Amino acid sequence: MRAWRLAVGFGVLAALLARPGEGAGADPAVDAARAFRQAHGAEILRSFAELLALPNVASDLPGIERNALFIREALAARGARTELWRQDGVPPIVFGELPAPGAARTLGVYMHYDGQPVVAADWAQDPWQPTLYDGALEAGGRPRPLPVPGEPIDPEWRLYGRGAGDDKAPLPAILAALDALEAAGIPRTVNLKFFFEGEEEAGSGHLEAYMREHRERLDVDLWLVCDGPVHQSRRPQLVFGVRGITALDVTVYGASRYLHSGHYGNWSPNPALLLSQLLASMKDADGDVVIAGFYDDTIPPGPAERAALAALPAVEEGLLRELELAPGATDGAGATLAERLLLPSLNVRGLVSGAVGAGARNVIPTQAEASLDVRLVKGNDPQRMLDVVEAHIASHGFHVVRETPDAATRRAHPRIAKVVREGGYPAARTPLDAAAVQPAIAAARRVAGDELILMPSLGGSLPLYLFADILGSPVVIVPIANHDDNQHAPNENLRLANLWYGIELMAALFTSGG
Amino acid sequence: MRAWRLAVGFGVLAALLARPGEGAGADPAVDAARAFRQAHGAEILRSFAELLALPNVASDLPGIERNALFIREALAARGARTELWRQDGVPPIVFGELPAPGAARTLGVYMHYDGQPVVAADWAQDPWQPTLYDGALEAGGRPRPLPVPGEPIDPEWRLYGRGAGDDKAPLPAILAALDALEAAGIPRTVNLKFFFEGEEEAGSGHLEAYMREHRERLDVDLWLVCDGPVHQSRRPQLVFGVRGITALDVTVYGASRYLHSGHYGNWSPNPALLLSQLLASMKDADGDVVIAGFYDDTIPPGPAERAALAALPAVEEGLLRELELAPGATDGAGATLAERLLLPSLNVRGLVSGAVGAGARNVIPTQAEASLDVRLVKGNDPQRMLDVVEAHIASHGFHVVRETPDAATRRAHPRIAKVVREGGYPAARTPLDAAAVQPAIAAARRVAGDELILMPSLGGSLPLYLFADILGSPVVIVPIANHDDNQHAPNENLRLANLWYGIELMAALFTSGG
Repeated sequence: MRAWRLAVGFGVLAALLARPGEGAGADPAVDAARAFRQAHGAEILRSFAELLALPNVASDLPGIERNALFIREALAARGARTELWRQDGVPPIVFGELPAPGAARTLGVYMHYDGQPVVAADWAQDPWQPTLYDGALEAGGRPRPLPVPGEPIDPEWRLYGRGAGDDKAPLPAILAALDALEAAGIPRTVNLKFFFEGEEEAGSGHLEAYMREHRERLDVDLWLVCDGPVHQSRRPQLVFGVRGITALDVTVYGASRYLHSGHYGNWSPNPALLLSQLLASMKDADGDVVIAGFYDDTIPPGPAERAALAALPAVEEGLLRELELAPGATDGAGATLAERLLLPSLNVRGLVSGAVGAGARNVIPTQAEASLDVRLVKGNDPQRMLDVVEAHIASHGFHVVRETPDAATRRAHPRIAKVVREGGYPAARTPLDAAAVQPAIAAARRVAGDELILMPSLGGSLPLYLFADILGSPVVIVPIANHDDNQHAPNENLRLANLWYGIELMAALFTSGG
Repeated sequence: MRAWRLAVGFGVLAALLARPGEGAGADPAVDAARAFRQAHGAEILRSFAELLALPNVASDLPGIERNALFIREALAARGARTELWRQDGVPPIVFGELPAPGAARTLGVYMHYDGQPVVAADWAQDPWQPTLYDGALEAGGRPRPLPVPGEPIDPEWRLYGRGAGDDKAPLPAILAALDALEAAGIPRTVNLKFFFEGEEEAGSGHLEAYMREHRERLDVDLWLVCDGPVHQSRRPQLVFGVRGITALDVTVYGASRYLHSGHYGNWSPNPALLLSQLLASMKDADGDVVIAGFYDDTIPPGPAERAALAALPAVEEGLLRELELAPGATDGAGATLAERLLLPSLNVRGLVSGAVGAGARNVIPTQAEASLDVRLVKGNDPQRMLDVVEAHIASHGFHVVRETPDAATRRAHPRIAKVVREGGYPAARTPLDAAAVQPAIAAARRVAGDELILMPSLGGSLPLYLFADILGSPVVIVPIANHDDNQHAPNENLRLANLWYGIELMAALFTSGG
């Protein structure tokens, strides 16, 4: 899951153990899943290790093909009608259909079977040689053999290997849940459609094309996007949205050549100061954006989202400590982090003019450049958001251009801003009170009880809008992996307690609603 | 002349020919100087070429020694009592005294005989093989032999070689003026003290020590600092001051590690925006500094300076064209450049946070750093000016520190600014109506007539305050070289018309006043 890479690793946050089951309602499917993994944990891990042994970098097409065939085979073995959808020279989609006799609802299940590239030398082991450890490496965990059938399994053990968390973890959960229901004779209540992507970590460059080509086959009532980690408090969560994103670069100009600051300073315009004044005008002292129209299209959280926000565990104090920030240092006048994630944001990601420190020279720089990213929430159109930022720049006296201005343009306009707009995509957010997600919420609650966190939106950006906009169905993100799974990093791993939770969750989801 | 390097090269400015003599009063000394160089131009150039053939980079002590001996010998040949003042391992001072019987006034004459290092490959010739060209290289000038005695000499010829303009040019002017007066039987009216430095281009690291050691020998009525180019309009000028300088670096902080802009943007503080807001608060829309107390100590120009400012040739329109700036783009609400140079300035010379353009990432930077230089005018103390800037930073809610803050400091203060202060030195400015400079003004006017420009201050900075503060005498800068002499660059040169002007000027100065 690309955009989440910086979300992990809250080492100092309370390491709450997820306690699936506490406070949960009775559910034969969940019981069956638990019994099955208690009886067959060793086999589940062995099969998962086989999958993890297959290198899965999207650019390695032969390796990707072996993964796709393995997964297709595993789904077919559970009775699914499977297909590999192909486009030239890119990883295939593994598609599968598993109808449930008499079921009225269909769940779409998305995961991606490709993983991040590896720098093998940085790993404690071969990244493609999955290895079980008796705890987290960072906490002194040591390698141990895979358990033999019947051997007790500690849920704090972790299986290390590329893709263990991001994002092969959902597969053993799905397969074991299907096997558990089959073994217990519990029928699924929903039809399933599997839609597994093989190039998410390479940018999902063909996801939209695959969706458009197979739009009718991908008609479901709800998409379960199985990716990402559970909450950093270790509590299970369902996530109902992500933010969109766009970005722009702004360059303002002084004289056409570097000037001696003594001979021309405070006469010839200083672009670093002009840009500072422009950026300063975009936000107030609380860090709220004061650009006209910036918040106008924002769809605010409804009652269900507000209730979910109120129920979130407080992370702010721990974060301030972790990030070495003083109380009062944050933007938003005391708003919680999750509240801020439901607003569009404007971030100065870079600012460069002249040189600082030992490289500083007594000159007036010729230009100053800022790079801004804009995170979008439900209601914000990427291009319109860039329009309002650009209108703000123009309203501060800048003549806006698209290319580096020539001499005639410079001579004609006292203030010039070159604005280079990036593309971007909108946010996606499923209302927490949407009918389509209620069975999923109820199912997750049967597994996780009061521990379940309902997260209205992540702060990061993923093109989830494709599911909503092209396929026309609501989406809920269903994370399984531990938050400290080292995704995108060396020593990626899956904590077994999280896999056990995933199996129960899938069993509950596959028998959810009516 | 180190700090003036960026002042040269106004290629598009009207190339007014300096016309020494027009409108000038009759002066036998000036006439004698003109007649002498008309009769002996070839010999003057030949002797100057010998000096230019001596490599004079300050770090090349054997080369420097040869220059010092040459100059001492030349002064001694004109009857001066000469000395070489030495400190270990650095270039010597060439000192000389040439009394005038019955004279009441003493002029100190400063120049520096060292030059900038060279990159020989960038030159059209060997930089230490002085070569005469029949015009500026940039205008198609071609090398030609030095003239033979009696051969007519075109004043637009140029002599190329390191140091030709900066700053060996005064020496042939001084020597020829002495010879001309001697030949015409015109007695000098002032005593002369020569104080020639050999490491100006290396930072004048021992100038102050030499001054303190020989303070009593350096007692004069007026210092003529012979350095720098004439006005960019090509008109002769006397310059009565330079600005001082100091500088500071300001760093503000966000979280202690880079953060994902989606997950934390607009909650965790953005240091690039905080710094922009801080910098923006330092100046108004006109580019005037709004820091409390910034202008308080400034000694404004008096009536004589204001009259000189009013008489300056207008350079602004040409500069705007040259620098590709639109009318109205400059700071100061229409003030002239020279007016702005009589105010202290605050220049953002660098600004860096995160990355821009192709290197931009969707993160919140951990810090933002700005580097500022502050030019000082008469009345401003460097440390006090830094104090008022720092007080401004504190008044905007920043806890000011000297070192990179540790975690405890970060946790204790919502806003932190690390301020690293540089040293610096004050301005120097001799009032235009000071009695000591009137004879020099009158002398220059006898040579240059109405063309003479009286410049109250340069924008750049030189430690001229040493002459005023340590030696206790007023200073006037007496430039000779053409403004387009490529000083500090390859193909440095002296236009012969400027040398001829210098000879007449020295003759007038040496017979000035009463």
